Amino acid sequence: MNYREQSLKKHAEWKGKIETVCRVPTDSREALSLAYTPGVAEPCLAIQKDVEKSFELTRRWNTVAVITDGTAILGLGDIGPEAGMPVMEGKCALFKAYGNVDAFPICIKSKDPDEIIKTISLISGSFGGINLEDISAPRCFEVETRLKSQLNIPVFHDDQHGTAIVMCAALINALKLAGKKKEEIKIVINGAGAAGIAIAKFLLDFGVKDVTMCDKFGIICKGDETLNSAHKEIAELTNKSRLTGKLAQAMVGADVFIGVSAPNCVTKEMVKSMAEKPIVFTCANPVPEISREDALEAGAFVVGTGSSEFPNQINNVLVFPGLFRGALDVRATTVNAEMMKAAAQGIANCVGEKLSRDYILPYAYDKSAHTAVAKAVAEAAVSSKVNKI
Amino acid sequence: MNYREQSLKKHAEWKGKIETVCRVPTDSREALSLAYTPGVAEPCLAIQKDVEKSFELTRRWNTVAVITDGTAILGLGDIGPEAGMPVMEGKCALFKAYGNVDAFPICIKSKDPDEIIKTISLISGSFGGINLEDISAPRCFEVETRLKSQLNIPVFHDDQHGTAIVMCAALINALKLAGKKKEEIKIVINGAGAAGIAIAKFLLDFGVKDVTMCDKFGIICKGDETLNSAHKEIAELTNKSRLTGKLAQAMVGADVFIGVSAPNCVTKEMVKSMAEKPIVFTCANPVPEISREDALEAGAFVVGTGSSEFPNQINNVLVFPGLFRGALDVRATTVNAEMMKAAAQGIANCVGEKLSRDYILPYAYDKSAHTAVAKAVAEAAVSSKVNKI
Repeated sequence: MNYREQSLKKHAEWKGKIETVCRVPTDSREALSLAYTPGVAEPCLAIQKDVEKSFELTRRWNTVAVITDGTAILGLGDIGPEAGMPVMEGKCALFKAYGNVDAFPICIKSKDPDEIIKTISLISGSFGGINLEDISAPRCFEVETRLKSQLNIPVFHDDQHGTAIVMCAALINALKLAGKKKEEIKIVINGAGAAGIAIAKFLLDFGVKDVTMCDKFGIICKGDETLNSAHKEIAELTNKSRLTGKLAQAMVGADVFIGVSAPNCVTKEMVKSMAEKPIVFTCANPVPEISREDALEAGAFVVGTGSSEFPNQINNVLVFPGLFRGALDVRATTVNAEMMKAAAQGIANCVGEKLSRDYILPYAYDKSAHTAVAKAVAEAAVSSKVNKI
Repeated sequence: MNYREQSLKKHAEWKGKIETVCRVPTDSREALSLAYTPGVAEPCLAIQKDVEKSFELTRRWNTVAVITDGTAILGLGDIGPEAGMPVMEGKCALFKAYGNVDAFPICIKSKDPDEIIKTISLISGSFGGINLEDISAPRCFEVETRLKSQLNIPVFHDDQHGTAIVMCAALINALKLAGKKKEEIKIVINGAGAAGIAIAKFLLDFGVKDVTMCDKFGIICKGDETLNSAHKEIAELTNKSRLTGKLAQAMVGADVFIGVSAPNCVTKEMVKSMAEKPIVFTCANPVPEISREDALEAGAFVVGTGSSEFPNQINNVLVFPGLFRGALDVRATTVNAEMMKAAAQGIANCVGEKLSRDYILPYAYDKSAHTAVAKAVAEAAVSSKVNKI
């Protein structure tokens, strides 16, 4: 039985990967009078006077909503809100296991950005943070941007920024092994969806100078009038030498290939055409852009994939539990660039002395990694003054 | 220190009365592959094919949203959505402790029924049931009615129906002690808000023939053009003798007084004017319509109050955990009158041989009562054919 068949069986046994538990005594008249009526009136009135007290007198301080509209679930696409729930629940389970965050899965039965934003905004008073998940591009950009401006709690689209952060962490350590500097390398990103665009922006902000993006149609180049608005925007920031053509052309001489695209779109020849000690991150799931084996045979120096079956799994599980833990710990009002860069550096630092071509990232289930991310993020929130505690 | 001061202190210590826990292993690569990617794709696809599977492969089957807009929190009124959260959390804690239901508190930042209905409808795919809470009248009627017609999961406005059910249970046992029949008694209900109107409708449906309602302005009587629409509707069903005047007039010769109204609006003289063996339920909170002591002195045969400090507490805590437990157990698509009547009878039956003037209802923390309610509700759902399991 493969993982997917086994997983279906397990899900039918588990009947839910999370549950809610009661944290207070309820077994006497006195207990009820404190946790419920009449006593509960007093914390209610305290919050009425100062809404910020909702972070002290209820579980809000530790609670994150994991929200999807079901339009971009894993690599499965638009399978519907309820069908996305096993992923959301899984995420909530990991939030608790790795970050001690109380996360709750919510699917929204609408694809309209206005309705999604309105819904999340209206229920946001119950939460200390909003983790957006598997919402398809380009709607995800608008949903996140508008929510960030409306709410004074952290809003984070994991598919964009979680992916960008862990990719950056992998890059930091791979460059260390290859002896290359971020300012001097040439990076090709294939797949200009939510994740690819977020990775490009993040790496440019991080200090990388030369990024070229490709999508199905080929290289994204400024001046191409057929580009959509998100691609036009990224064309302004990337491909400074105005390269045109297909992915194969872009990869010639590149130091790093980052794939968040489609199965089997990279050949051994393309890897061979890259610069010395090429770094190849192939994150298409479940079938990568090129297999790890083929990439290594073609001379790749470091290979990372999206799969847990091989070394160097590049998965945003390394990011979200610690990132929200850190943000919640200092009651951050947002997730800013400083916090995200701190998370990337925090993950990279965890590897330490053990760094090798087959170990550039900590394991997802290594709790010390999540603790390190939380600490780095909380410190960055404080130093960039977005903390309320 | 009184309950309210003590409760505030406890809430600051607890920092949340519920939390989310992880129910699956997450400590190895294999565990992650089953609970998360890549395995999780399979349950997602199974739900895509048949949405009903979301009740088998996620926690939806056991999950209820406890939702308020913060407009009618306890007796405190419109204190705002976040300020209502301690009550919602308390309810969630009791849902778990007494019904083993995973309940999650959500406050909605809107008072517009259209927005509230839309929001709940859009997030309903995450839940197996919706418990509406502390939404002010008359908006609560529209919110509940429209949601019930839109959703195929149980929708229940606790302030209306929970109160009506527990009041009916109390009445069943009080009538038994007084040796009176429901068809022959005269009931006066004071307070024609959400709870009072729901109690009137419920008791009429239960078989009571003579109900008169009063509100601040006096007796509600058909033909009074100054009545609001909810009062006009209830005037059609109540006060058949077209009595006019104040509460004092209505109470003359009444067998039962039910107060869900305001402090100290009933005098000893009014109780003395009632029929033989008068039953007095005074549920205004925290100060009742007349004190238990005064009611007894004036000749009340059975007294019930909303307070846990006296015998015969009439509190809907006795209803909602078992009602939803029963509904969820058979995957009921709604909460219908049969299920609600079964809940009332189930609560009344729990008292059994111990029935006395000071013990007409089981204690809220008596788990066997909740189990009995669940069983009665599940059976009623099956016999009225609203079950999917």
